[in-house]
Amino acid sequence: MSGKRVAVIGASGYGGLQTLRLLLGHPELEITFLGGERSSGKRWSELVPFLPLPTDLVVSSPDPEAIAAAADLAVLSLPNGLASQLVPPLLQRGVRVVDLSADYRYSSLAQWQEVYGAEARQYPRSDSALCEEAVYGLVEWESPERIAAARLVAAPGCFPTASLLALLPFLKQGLIETRGIVIDAKTGTSGGGRAAKENLLLAEAAEAVAPYGVVGHRHTSEIEQLAGQVAGHGVQLQFTPHLMPMVRGLLATVYARLRDPGLTAEDCTVLLGAAYRHSACVAVLPVGTYPSTKWVRQTNRALLSVQVDKRTGQLIVMSAIDNLVKGQAGQGVQCLNLMAGLEASTGLPLAPFYP
Amino acid sequence: MSGKRVAVIGASGYGGLQTLRLLLGHPELEITFLGGERSSGKRWSELVPFLPLPTDLVVSSPDPEAIAAAADLAVLSLPNGLASQLVPPLLQRGVRVVDLSADYRYSSLAQWQEVYGAEARQYPRSDSALCEEAVYGLVEWESPERIAAARLVAAPGCFPTASLLALLPFLKQGLIETRGIVIDAKTGTSGGGRAAKENLLLAEAAEAVAPYGVVGHRHTSEIEQLAGQVAGHGVQLQFTPHLMPMVRGLLATVYARLRDPGLTAEDCTVLLGAAYRHSACVAVLPVGTYPSTKWVRQTNRALLSVQVDKRTGQLIVMSAIDNLVKGQAGQGVQCLNLMAGLEASTGLPLAPFYP
Amino acid sequence: MSGKRVAVIGASGYGGLQTLRLLLGHPELEITFLGGERSSGKRWSELVPFLPLPTDLVVSSPDPEAIAAAADLAVLSLPNGLASQLVPPLLQRGVRVVDLSADYRYSSLAQWQEVYGAEARQYPRSDSALCEEAVYGLVEWESPERIAAARLVAAPGCFPTASLLALLPFLKQGLIETRGIVIDAKTGTSGGGRAAKENLLLAEAAEAVAPYGVVGHRHTSEIEQLAGQVAGHGVQLQFTPHLMPMVRGLLATVYARLRDPGLTAEDCTVLLGAAYRHSACVAVLPVGTYPSTKWVRQTNRALLSVQVDKRTGQLIVMSAIDNLVKGQAGQGVQCLNLMAGLEASTGLPLAPFYP
Amino acid sequence: MSGKRVAVIGASGYGGLQTLRLLLGHPELEITFLGGERSSGKRWSELVPFLPLPTDLVVSSPDPEAIAAAADLAVLSLPNGLASQLVPPLLQRGVRVVDLSADYRYSSLAQWQEVYGAEARQYPRSDSALCEEAVYGLVEWESPERIAAARLVAAPGCFPTASLLALLPFLKQGLIETRGIVIDAKTGTSGGGRAAKENLLLAEAAEAVAPYGVVGHRHTSEIEQLAGQVAGHGVQLQFTPHLMPMVRGLLATVYARLRDPGLTAEDCTVLLGAAYRHSACVAVLPVGTYPSTKWVRQTNRALLSVQVDKRTGQLIVMSAIDNLVKGQAGQGVQCLNLMAGLEASTGLPLAPFYP
Repeated sequence: MSGKRVAVIGASGYGGLQTLRLLLGHPELEITFLGGERSSGKRWSELVPFLPLPTDLVVSSPDPEAIAAAADLAVLSLPNGLASQLVPPLLQRGVRVVDLSADYRYSSLAQWQEVYGAEARQYPRSDSALCEEAVYGLVEWESPERIAAARLVAAPGCFPTASLLALLPFLKQGLIETRGIVIDAKTGTSGGGRAAKENLLLAEAAEAVAPYGVVGHRHTSEIEQLAGQVAGHGVQLQFTPHLMPMVRGLLATVYARLRDPGLTAEDCTVLLGAAYRHSACVAVLPVGTYPSTKWVRQTNRALLSVQVDKRTGQLIVMSAIDNLVKGQAGQGVQCLNLMAGLEASTGLPLAPFYP
Repeated sequence: MSGKRVAVIGASGYGGLQTLRLLLGHPELEITFLGGERSSGKRWSELVPFLPLPTDLVVSSPDPEAIAAAADLAVLSLPNGLASQLVPPLLQRGVRVVDLSADYRYSSLAQWQEVYGAEARQYPRSDSALCEEAVYGLVEWESPERIAAARLVAAPGCFPTASLLALLPFLKQGLIETRGIVIDAKTGTSGGGRAAKENLLLAEAAEAVAPYGVVGHRHTSEIEQLAGQVAGHGVQLQFTPHLMPMVRGLLATVYARLRDPGLTAEDCTVLLGAAYRHSACVAVLPVGTYPSTKWVRQTNRALLSVQVDKRTGQLIVMSAIDNLVKGQAGQGVQCLNLMAGLEASTGLPLAPFYP
Repeated sequence: MSGKRVAVIGASGYGGLQTLRLLLGHPELEITFLGGERSSGKRWSELVPFLPLPTDLVVSSPDPEAIAAAADLAVLSLPNGLASQLVPPLLQRGVRVVDLSADYRYSSLAQWQEVYGAEARQYPRSDSALCEEAVYGLVEWESPERIAAARLVAAPGCFPTASLLALLPFLKQGLIETRGIVIDAKTGTSGGGRAAKENLLLAEAAEAVAPYGVVGHRHTSEIEQLAGQVAGHGVQLQFTPHLMPMVRGLLATVYARLRDPGLTAEDCTVLLGAAYRHSACVAVLPVGTYPSTKWVRQTNRALLSVQVDKRTGQLIVMSAIDNLVKGQAGQGVQCLNLMAGLEASTGLPLAPFYP
Repeated sequence: MSGKRVAVIGASGYGGLQTLRLLLGHPELEITFLGGERSSGKRWSELVPFLPLPTDLVVSSPDPEAIAAAADLAVLSLPNGLASQLVPPLLQRGVRVVDLSADYRYSSLAQWQEVYGAEARQYPRSDSALCEEAVYGLVEWESPERIAAARLVAAPGCFPTASLLALLPFLKQGLIETRGIVIDAKTGTSGGGRAAKENLLLAEAAEAVAPYGVVGHRHTSEIEQLAGQVAGHGVQLQFTPHLMPMVRGLLATVYARLRDPGLTAEDCTVLLGAAYRHSACVAVLPVGTYPSTKWVRQTNRALLSVQVDKRTGQLIVMSAIDNLVKGQAGQGVQCLNLMAGLEASTGLPLAPFYP
């Protein structure tokens, strides 16, 4: 029998808050431990008066012993690098982990250390074996059995989630060229976390659209890793994120060149539909209907749509998710579900509160 | 001596309002006629209590005789198609026109009729000669003398303005491939005009990012027309606009493949800087500084930045403008200035009110 | 046994959409009819691709016979005046109604006709008896038995809901003066509905705060009606709504003079807590914690907080709700629940997706 | 001859940025010194790439000697308390000061120390004489000659500016009761400054309206000080600020009881118009037209409107300003103008860029 008691570490950040909100409405999983460094010792109801939990827990320092005593599963919503300090002691104590950070998303520790240089210097690591063992939790493209059996799941980043859901069906079928792919992505400011930063102030970020991390953004290599695996050979892509004046939502507009110029948008829509036929959390829109991030806000759903330009031979795949749900906490809960022996989509909201 | 009395037709729409606001602070041009169908007969101060004009004019039906009696120059901010009904009678009466609509942006009437099919059916036209005569008012790329001498100037669309300013220096020098160009553009909702539409309601458009007009948006052909002229041969590009949850601002992220893989971002920045050395309304940011639409809000300035990805061989040019100023009314005033014998940037704001 | 099949009339407006979203997650009530004039004949999945219903119904013209054949209960989300044309034939056919419009909120038809003059002229009515029969569906202040037994429930307006929840406990206890009460209310733009209006465009309403309907707003009399009943004598108040640059949320800041200058904020908080001890959808915050509309967004919860100014003798009660949920559709579902023999809060979300 | 060289201290905060933007368009005043602690040593063009100054100054530590060498006038945009450390040495060196902080807004140092307790403990002061000497820079209600001759001007707070402009004409004429006044104020988040704070993040503050500082907000006593002086006796009021999901703009909705129940809205509008007939920066709207903060955005204008409720005897005055311009930097420039021997409104924008 799989344990269903869950610890949430980093409870008052956005990843933690969102995980708690999802678990709050969950029919099977139970919140039994709240971990946080800054808010340690505070009663939850004082800290977050607007989100009452069934049991008014006190936030505790994330001590592995205490977590292991209280929980079977732990969701870690911690800064990159810091997560890697907590994961090994948790696994040693039998706590299975869903890590929302980037620490175990690469099967190679060396690659992580290269891509996350600053964090690697701050947090020396030698857990290569764990990096290899960790399962990449993109539920729609990983074997459910592997996730169900995993000790450690690395939940994908928000940009990789939206991008990979759009790209992988075409890469798998070999329908697009693996050079010259452009991913132009747009995200709300909550993706930057809850820690106060000047550029994320409403006064700065409202009425503003701007690119950032142009060329070499960390998520590029994360996307290329799985894309390459599915394509069967290296994939090279141009990924450019943009900050949007909104709280939540992420749209990836993916441009790729079709190998077969005869393919139509309808063909590609059929193909995409087939790829996600059994995925409760992914839906494909009819040709000519384009996804709005608002249509998936506060849901664990990804909405995809395809268009083809006969004139230029380009395939355009649009992919909208909520960056904090399907792009983070919701995906984490999908993994928790599988690890607890449940259906992946158990307890996850799929319908938005519109408008 | 060039006349400096200006009529603004379509005064209470966003193009008209913005033109009036710019003329209000103008040292030389004078507002002498306000035209509008719906608000005809109303005193300006009642209609728009927050924008007092030096003379509290009454809005009049846009009668060519009356306009010609009052003004030397006219700015037309009318729906596509409708503008073409007013331009010929104005020119006949000696009024020189800056048209903010798309009606004279193509040198071929047949192309306009194909691209703007619905408008072409509603407004039958036979003014091919005027289409050929009209000067495309992208001041930075047109001869100032031609605009100064023109009877009719077609102000470019907002997306073409941002896109062309980014692309043309590279096309002119032959530095990028003319196939496979991707323009991923993001605009605020004011680009959709002031007429009430459900999708532009705050309740719909706030907290939402979505693509629209994917494949075949009208501005594609407008961009390709001038791009092809400057490149010296046909250019084919993929243009995808996205609606952003903000009032103003437009960002075009342009992806193109460099012909010479040895070019660096610094090289490209130098080249871009040289291209706009004498353009008061275009500035190039240093490598690594990316433009925010907020940095140009309510100014007539375009901010450009370049990045190069060695790995993929892609050039990325980012171009930010205010869609209602450099993308519409401000560009119109640049043209008016030249037509009135002034410096193009006379009276135009270049510094934003931040934040 | 109470029927649980529900018809939603006016399905694609905000009230209808929100009702459907709430029923979608409801464990007992079933959506069996979608009514709408403009979208009649359209399949729901085409009309609203982002909110799949269990059964992909076709929207029908709201014919009383058809509604009665399909449903036991109907929620009407129609323009004021129009609802009164549909309610009598529905009741005659045994369909019990929750009306989200203002048509049955006054027990006196004459008063409605005075307050809603334009609508009264457009829709002549003679259903005085129904106005008297209708139960005002402010669940926390009406007898649950009366609502459970009602044929017709008039769901309160959004402003009255927030205002009355704040005022009634103090009026009932006779703790505040019934003259000089000031209600300064702030609402998101979704309160204005989904029909396109210029002033609700994002370009107009974003970055803008303004009062409207100053002196004599219709909700003034609606608030005074129930306030007077609970106080036991006439109450006169100043109600001023303001439009906020956001989609959802309503905050009423209520100012009243305390009769007993010795009362503290703590006393008043205890009193308020006692008044709502058994109300699952109302919570009282500790002194010094003030409600944000964001804390109740997309929930059916009202959050109240009290402050007292010793110096001035003023009581300040702050009341935050989601205007489309507790202020409209959620309140409607509370009533439906009681009418169907369920707990009032069945199936209603009380925890927000923050941020 | 009055000196016109201006130092701006705290240049990269919002008050400083806004002051610089206004001086940039100013025909007479010249920016000759940029002071800042954190950005000391940085070239302006690197620090703020979007706001080029005529001379690309280097930001310097705010050393009184250096300031005195470079400037005749200084605008201080520093945290409360800190300003009081710099003002005396500047005055000693002959630099005249406009202080945007609260440090010299009270004529009594003791009162400042009581209201600003934390700052008073951090910054011990003994400059009582300066507190008495300082002129309160609400230009419309202070003698222009006093400001013109002042060594030290304390620019009013944003809330006091909007509130006092609304209240003073009625208090001066004795038309309203001086007890029971309610000021319900709404401000954009830029009022909280540029330093990063969690509650001002876009993810927190967007789609949210909430009160703060309920009962006893510091601006209460600032408003009461001048209100009492103009009324000729003590005035007691209830002031409640609310945070709005927008960048700029401040609306004060002021409720007061009319002494003479016969006064109409039209009467009060005439009176208000008369009070501000000679004030270029204040305009009164016709009865029934209510001010939007958007109508004054990025201008130094205050827009007022009056309504009267016959039924309740309440006067409602609505007052909209831009919190960073008329509520801060623009008001500072009005004072600078007078001190430099110019018209108060010289170089100040009065027309908004709408939308």
